[in-house]
Amino acid sequence: MKVNTEISAVEEVLTRGVQEIVVADSLKKKMLSGKQLRIKHGVDPTSTDLHLGYAVVYEKLRQFQELGHKIVFLIGSFTARFGDPTDKGKVREMKTKEAVMEMAKEYIKQLGKIIDIKKIEVVYNGNWYDKFSAEDLLNLMSKFTVARMLERDMFQQRMKEAREIYLHEPVYPVLQGYDSVVIKSDITVIGSDQKFNELQARPLQEAAGQVPQDLMMVPLLIGTDGEQKMSQSLGNYIGIADSPQDQFGKTMSIPDSLIYSYFELCTRVDASDLYEIEKQLKSGENPRNIKVRLAKEIVKIYHGERAAQKAEEEFINVFSNKQKPTNIPKFVFREDMNILGIMVASEMVTSNSEGRRMVEQKAVKVNEIIVSDIEQHGFKAGDVVQVGKRRYIELV
Amino acid sequence: MKVNTEISAVEEVLTRGVQEIVVADSLKKKMLSGKQLRIKHGVDPTSTDLHLGYAVVYEKLRQFQELGHKIVFLIGSFTARFGDPTDKGKVREMKTKEAVMEMAKEYIKQLGKIIDIKKIEVVYNGNWYDKFSAEDLLNLMSKFTVARMLERDMFQQRMKEAREIYLHEPVYPVLQGYDSVVIKSDITVIGSDQKFNELQARPLQEAAGQVPQDLMMVPLLIGTDGEQKMSQSLGNYIGIADSPQDQFGKTMSIPDSLIYSYFELCTRVDASDLYEIEKQLKSGENPRNIKVRLAKEIVKIYHGERAAQKAEEEFINVFSNKQKPTNIPKFVFREDMNILGIMVASEMVTSNSEGRRMVEQKAVKVNEIIVSDIEQHGFKAGDVVQVGKRRYIELV
Repeated sequence: MKVNTEISAVEEVLTRGVQEIVVADSLKKKMLSGKQLRIKHGVDPTSTDLHLGYAVVYEKLRQFQELGHKIVFLIGSFTARFGDPTDKGKVREMKTKEAVMEMAKEYIKQLGKIIDIKKIEVVYNGNWYDKFSAEDLLNLMSKFTVARMLERDMFQQRMKEAREIYLHEPVYPVLQGYDSVVIKSDITVIGSDQKFNELQARPLQEAAGQVPQDLMMVPLLIGTDGEQKMSQSLGNYIGIADSPQDQFGKTMSIPDSLIYSYFELCTRVDASDLYEIEKQLKSGENPRNIKVRLAKEIVKIYHGERAAQKAEEEFINVFSNKQKPTNIPKFVFREDMNILGIMVASEMVTSNSEGRRMVEQKAVKVNEIIVSDIEQHGFKAGDVVQVGKRRYIELV
Repeated sequence: MKVNTEISAVEEVLTRGVQEIVVADSLKKKMLSGKQLRIKHGVDPTSTDLHLGYAVVYEKLRQFQELGHKIVFLIGSFTARFGDPTDKGKVREMKTKEAVMEMAKEYIKQLGKIIDIKKIEVVYNGNWYDKFSAEDLLNLMSKFTVARMLERDMFQQRMKEAREIYLHEPVYPVLQGYDSVVIKSDITVIGSDQKFNELQARPLQEAAGQVPQDLMMVPLLIGTDGEQKMSQSLGNYIGIADSPQDQFGKTMSIPDSLIYSYFELCTRVDASDLYEIEKQLKSGENPRNIKVRLAKEIVKIYHGERAAQKAEEEFINVFSNKQKPTNIPKFVFREDMNILGIMVASEMVTSNSEGRRMVEQKAVKVNEIIVSDIEQHGFKAGDVVQVGKRRYIELV
C-alpha cells in the first residue's frame, strides 16, 4: 500500500488532539520516510463496553491507517491475566486465559466501528509469553532495576500511602516493553497513563538492534459530567454501543466547556471546520446549536448518517418541542404498585432513594401531571410515566 | 532407620556451635517426635574448593544424619545460574546449566569427606524451575511484596550506597523459599547469612498445608587471620582438599583466641573434651600444645588418623626442630636465573614485589644462608631455597 507522506496530512495527524510525543522529530521523520510504519496499540481487554474515552486513541489509529500505515493491535492475552497495576484499591486478580480471549473477541468487534479491522494485524502476547520460561522472564527482568520500575507514578503513590506493591507488579512494564521488540513497533499510540510502560520498550528495542519506537500520547477524555475522566465505573460515559438516541442525548448533556475538545478528539470534522467551530463558540452563538452538530457527528461515526439525522429529529421532538418520544418502552405493571414501585421495577430509577429524590424535585410526571406523593397509586394501562427529561414508559 | 531421640543427644545437636534457631521449641519437638526429619541444606555450587567455613554447616548436617535424619542436599542448579544477590560489587553474571552441574558434582565429592553421601538425598532445583513457566513464576511472586523483599540487609545496604538492585534479584529469596515446599523440608541448617531467604519458605509451606520448616543458623567461621570470615578470596582459609601438611600448618597459624571455636565448630571432640579444652585454655597451659591437638583433630577428619599423626611429626620436625621437611619439591631452574626469578617462576612467591619484600625481611635462604641481594644468581642443582618458614624447593 502506498503511504501518504503529504506534509499537511502528516502534520494534521501529528498535532490534532495530541498531548505529547516522544520523540517528536524522530516520529515526523519516520512518517515522511514513505515506509509503511507499524503502529502499536496494546490493550488488556478487561471491559467489553468501549466508550468515547477509548475512541480518542482509536480515532488517532484510524488517521494513521488512512495514511497507509499498519495498525498492530496487541491484545495482552498474557498480561491481562494478571493485569496492569493500578493506583486504585487492591492488586488485580488474575484472570483465566479463556475469559481474556472471550473479551478480546468482543473488543475487536466494537473496534470495527472506528477503524478498518480487516486491515489491522491482531497479535496476542500470549503467543510469546505463554511459551516464556521462568528463566526467560528472569533474564528479561535482569535488564531493569527495581528503582527504575518504582519510579512509576502509581507505585510512588502507593508507597506514599503505605499500600503494598506485590513483587510481580513491577514486571508488567517490562513485559509491555518487550512486546514492542517482538512486534517491531515503530510508533505506539496510547493514553498518557501508559507512557511509563511504553517507554520501557525503547532500551529493549535498541538492545535488539531495532530503532526504538516513538510514543504518541493522546489526552484522557473528560466525561459528560465535565469533571472526571470518562469511565464506565463513574457512569459519565458515552458508549460506542449506545443507541443513537442515547449518544445524542448524552452528548447534549455535556458542559459547553467540553464542546471544542469533543469535536477535536471524538469527531472527524476537518481542520477548517474545527477552526469555524472555535470561532462560533467565541462569537456568542448559542452553544446548544453547536452541540447539536457535535451530537450528530458522533452518532454518524457509530450509527451512520441516517441514524444521526433521526436522532436529531427525535431529540428536537422530545426536548425542544416537549413532545413524547415516538417509541416509548412498555412496562407490565401490577395494579397495586405505587409510583415509587413502578419507577424502581421498570428501572427508570436505580433505587428507592433516587425515586424519592426525583419526586421531590418534581421530575416525575404521569400523563404530563407532576407527581407529588411517592405513595400515589391506582394506575391503569395506557398511563405514561415520565422521569426527568428523557425517561418514559407506558404502563401495560 | 531408627531415629535417636535421646534427650542429651538432641540437646547437643541443638546447642553445639549454634547461633540461632527459629523456632527453637518447634524444632526440639520435631526432633523428639521420633519421625525421620528432612533436613534441607541448599547450595548454589559456585566454587569447587570447600573450606572449613563451609564445613561448619556440614558438621552440623553430619550430626543430624547420625541421629538418623534424612539430609536433603539441594543443589541450586537453576538458581545458581543467576545467583543469590550479594552486597559485593556488581550483580552476578548468569552461568550456564552445564557449568553449574559440573561444579555440583565436584561439590558433592568434597562433601563426602564430612557426611555420608550415600545416605543423603540430592535434589536439583532445576528439576522444577526448568519447567516453571513465566506465569508460574509471576504467580509465585504475587505472594510477596516488594517492600518485604527489600528488607533484606544486603538490599538495604545497596540502597544506602545508591547501588542498583536489578529487578530479578528480589526474586531469589522467593525461589529459595519455594524449594522448601517442593522438598517438604522440616528443618534447614544454614549460615546466618541465609536466614532471610530461608524464612520465605515458611508462609509458602503453610499455604501449601505443610508444617513450616524451622531454621538452624550456625556462625560464620573466622579465617586464619583471626579477623575476617573465612573466604577463598581473602586467602585466610583452610581447604578441605588441602594436604595434611597444609591443614596442620594453617591451623597452627590461627590466633589463640580462635582455638576454642575451631574445636567447637570444626572438630568432633565430644562435649566433655570441649569442657577440658576450655579449662586448659584458661589455666595458662601453652596454647601451642592445644593447637597441635586441634590441628590433628582437623587433619583426622579429612585425611584420617595416620595422616594426622604424620603431619604432626612433620610439623615438629620443620617448625620446632627447624629441620628441613622430608619431602622438598623440586624446581627445574635455568642457570641464568637470579633468586627473584627462581622464587617467582617456582611460585614460592606470587609476585616480584612479594619476592623483594621477603628478601628485605631476611626471610629467604639458600642452603641455610640468608639472601641479601635480590639479584643474587649463579645457583646450581642441589641448592635448597627456603622462603619464610614453610616454603622449600630444591633446584634441579
